[in-house]
Amino acid sequence: MVRQAKNASSARNSSNSSDHSEKMDMDTSNGYHCPNGDTLQELQDCANRMRITSIEITAAANSGHPTSSCSAAEIVSTLFFHEMRYDPSNPRDPSSDRFVLSKGHASPILYAAWLETGHLTKNQVMTLRKIDSDIEGHPTPRLDFVDIATGSLGQGLSSAAGMAYVGKYIDKASYRVYCLIGDGESAEGAVWEAAAFASTYKLDNLVAVFDVNRLGQSQATPLGHDVQTYQKRLEAFGFHAIIVDGHDVAALLKAFHVAKTVSEKPVAIIAKTLKGKGIEGVEDEDNWHGKPVPIEKIKAIEQRIKNKGTIALKPQPPIYDAPKVDLKLGHIKLSEGPNYKVGDKVATRLAYGTALVKIGKGSDRVIALDGDTKNSTFSDKFLKEFPDRFIECFIAEQNLVGVAVGAATRHRTIPFCSTFAAFFTRAADQLRVAAISFANIKCAGSHVGVSIGEDGPSQMALEDLALFRSIPDSTVFYPTDAVSCERAVEFAANIQGLVFIRTGRPALPVIY
Amino acid sequence: MVRQAKNASSARNSSNSSDHSEKMDMDTSNGYHCPNGDTLQELQDCANRMRITSIEITAAANSGHPTSSCSAAEIVSTLFFHEMRYDPSNPRDPSSDRFVLSKGHASPILYAAWLETGHLTKNQVMTLRKIDSDIEGHPTPRLDFVDIATGSLGQGLSSAAGMAYVGKYIDKASYRVYCLIGDGESAEGAVWEAAAFASTYKLDNLVAVFDVNRLGQSQATPLGHDVQTYQKRLEAFGFHAIIVDGHDVAALLKAFHVAKTVSEKPVAIIAKTLKGKGIEGVEDEDNWHGKPVPIEKIKAIEQRIKNKGTIALKPQPPIYDAPKVDLKLGHIKLSEGPNYKVGDKVATRLAYGTALVKIGKGSDRVIALDGDTKNSTFSDKFLKEFPDRFIECFIAEQNLVGVAVGAATRHRTIPFCSTFAAFFTRAADQLRVAAISFANIKCAGSHVGVSIGEDGPSQMALEDLALFRSIPDSTVFYPTDAVSCERAVEFAANIQGLVFIRTGRPALPVIY
Repeated sequence: MVRQAKNASSARNSSNSSDHSEKMDMDTSNGYHCPNGDTLQELQDCANRMRITSIEITAAANSGHPTSSCSAAEIVSTLFFHEMRYDPSNPRDPSSDRFVLSKGHASPILYAAWLETGHLTKNQVMTLRKIDSDIEGHPTPRLDFVDIATGSLGQGLSSAAGMAYVGKYIDKASYRVYCLIGDGESAEGAVWEAAAFASTYKLDNLVAVFDVNRLGQSQATPLGHDVQTYQKRLEAFGFHAIIVDGHDVAALLKAFHVAKTVSEKPVAIIAKTLKGKGIEGVEDEDNWHGKPVPIEKIKAIEQRIKNKGTIALKPQPPIYDAPKVDLKLGHIKLSEGPNYKVGDKVATRLAYGTALVKIGKGSDRVIALDGDTKNSTFSDKFLKEFPDRFIECFIAEQNLVGVAVGAATRHRTIPFCSTFAAFFTRAADQLRVAAISFANIKCAGSHVGVSIGEDGPSQMALEDLALFRSIPDSTVFYPTDAVSCERAVEFAANIQGLVFIRTGRPALPVIY
Repeated sequence: MVRQAKNASSARNSSNSSDHSEKMDMDTSNGYHCPNGDTLQELQDCANRMRITSIEITAAANSGHPTSSCSAAEIVSTLFFHEMRYDPSNPRDPSSDRFVLSKGHASPILYAAWLETGHLTKNQVMTLRKIDSDIEGHPTPRLDFVDIATGSLGQGLSSAAGMAYVGKYIDKASYRVYCLIGDGESAEGAVWEAAAFASTYKLDNLVAVFDVNRLGQSQATPLGHDVQTYQKRLEAFGFHAIIVDGHDVAALLKAFHVAKTVSEKPVAIIAKTLKGKGIEGVEDEDNWHGKPVPIEKIKAIEQRIKNKGTIALKPQPPIYDAPKVDLKLGHIKLSEGPNYKVGDKVATRLAYGTALVKIGKGSDRVIALDGDTKNSTFSDKFLKEFPDRFIECFIAEQNLVGVAVGAATRHRTIPFCSTFAAFFTRAADQLRVAAISFANIKCAGSHVGVSIGEDGPSQMALEDLALFRSIPDSTVFYPTDAVSCERAVEFAANIQGLVFIRTGRPALPVIY
């Protein structure tokens, strides 16, 4: 399952090295070509203009997170105007690189970036946090340049890893995935589930940028600016981890360049930054989380900008090699109908596995994921039939759901993820946010109710209905027999959005 | 807040070094005294007897996890009959060392150990998985030697860390905490949340034993027997990490000894083991997870046992220095009543902070925990008044709840934990299992409903009522004003069990 999309990867690298040749100086020490001073100045100016935008729009809203945005200004300017390949006029092009803002509260810098690209107007970004505006406090896919909702921290890397997995193994395309993560949110265990997943599957098309600005909401983080410890953790979890000054555009560009040369490993760029960077009297100070800063603070930043106009740099275009995909929503059929006799004793979980194989035959974009329970949920039937479309996520249900959400973005796949229904509660927050993302994912939870008996209450799904039924726009199927279960799987594949299929452990009579 | 209970610690060490002096040989290479051969043989025999018990009781039940038990047999025999200090006739003595079986499916080895101590009878353990028996598939505190329910994987270390935190900083007592974790479950992010917490607070009274038996339920783990990578991860997360052969009783004893010499860091013992160890044709083989093995397999194990009788070793007694605690349940009062005028505009979250301080005055065992939102939930008022009883858990809500569950065990404290109500969904599984643990914890969730407005749906608690109302025996308070909120906090402190208090963001009129 772990294979390299070699052609795509080498095509990308050669293409990349020529694109900036006209603006590059030779760095003789290591063969890396650093862009020339004009380019660096443009990127620095862009970062400062985005700082100003962040301050302006949060001041106008009288709420929001300008300081969390300012720490990431150079990271975002270098990503958006040098590193990433995308088409600003078509943000969801399947061949474009992906950008996931896991630290969703830094939304002002994201909106500022899309203002710089010309995709948003100043009037639009000035509607930040207004009741009738999609320019929300935390970004959602109501905006065409956002793939997944963020704002509940620590979820972005799982979905980014899901996108990268699909890019490398299913699309086999050149696009890369960049995920910007806050240092505070790296306390969330889901980040480490995703990290282990990314290295297990050698996702060398994934770059996780950690914005280590030292300050959380209510106090400093436990590690502060101890970037070495972040590096050790990420290396231990299988990343190639690079420490940089997150306000040095040249250092960032070099790190992104190195990231592209790493193979068989995901890359982490650990950017040492200052919260509120560039804002006098605010930079690196406590008690500025989630607070607008006085608008006059922009004056000092303006004075640092050389090019007062729009940015002269254009993003690199995508390498258009992502396959055209037709999910056939509404037209996916079981390859053959349910084949049971009334009175046959069949567990609905077994019927789930059977049906999953049948719809897998109907669409090569149906994929299956499991959390080391595949021989209980019977998703292993899909693994046997379609090994290239099965993702073992091990015992990490938050990441299981997060990867599915990422895999479903840009209509690349229809993911069916399974585990014991009780253990979907582990991913309750991810499921809640999946609905905000309008994620087209299907969850099959097995061993529901007291039928699991002697295993005890920790294994019994009793709260699962309350969980899934309270999520807006979700659909819940609780099939009573094998026939209705197979049809529920077929329905699920054809309905847009979050679907939960509840299956049982014991073999029960077929009634339909 | 990070202080050492120095006297308790040194008392323990000196006491410990004398206890086994009569049975120790000198290991001249490092000054460590290894117990003599007789002791080692007793511990090995005990491990094998527990293997036989595990096989017998799962065979009788025709279900259960003998192979996951057998990998941990030597770990458990050395812990229970050499390392841990406890009174087998009084398992919940507050001064006893704690043992948390995070890999709860290995319950047979736990029941076998308590059979060896004489606390359980053979007839009792033979009722494993019977419908009217408390000897369940996964252990719960219905049994007096179990502090927390396990079985949903990856939760044990958080609660063990909560116990260790209370032991070190609140009880300031000698007891130590041992947590046995499976390698498969270490994929759960909650394990890494707990690991970061344990090192941040320098919990040198905590020992996490990782049973690295290589095999998960449905396939091998990603790391297999790569114990070096486990060591790197745990060192990066701030542990002193020791690799041992988990079937070598002498090596285990030495590792536990070293663990006691480590200060200001938690210790991880990474035990390389074989699943099904000792069972011919099953050991280290795939496809034996959660399956009984043929009963005749015990014969070969019996032949390896020298002492066929009961164990000659007795557990070390506790150091009786845990303070006597009276939680005063039913008698905790606000130090003064609510003091508002009808029509005053006060946010219920502010009233929560005010009331928390007032009941903190009424009981020195009320503690508060938060997830880096204390300046929003107003638990920071408690921090200011009682810094020694406030635990900052940073952005890791699973661990926040898990630590609270651990802190509440053995009636040591009444924990109030707070974050945005939306983010309690991150700990839905921990809360579900907390109820199975009969945990006496209180959760205060702020910023409920749409009142958080422009921050967007990811921050809005909409599903929280469904979450808490579906948990058996939980109590939910949704106070409408500051007066009722203060009284809800007072009630919560006096009710046994899980209580959820739902507070709002905006200042609203006092009506009572």
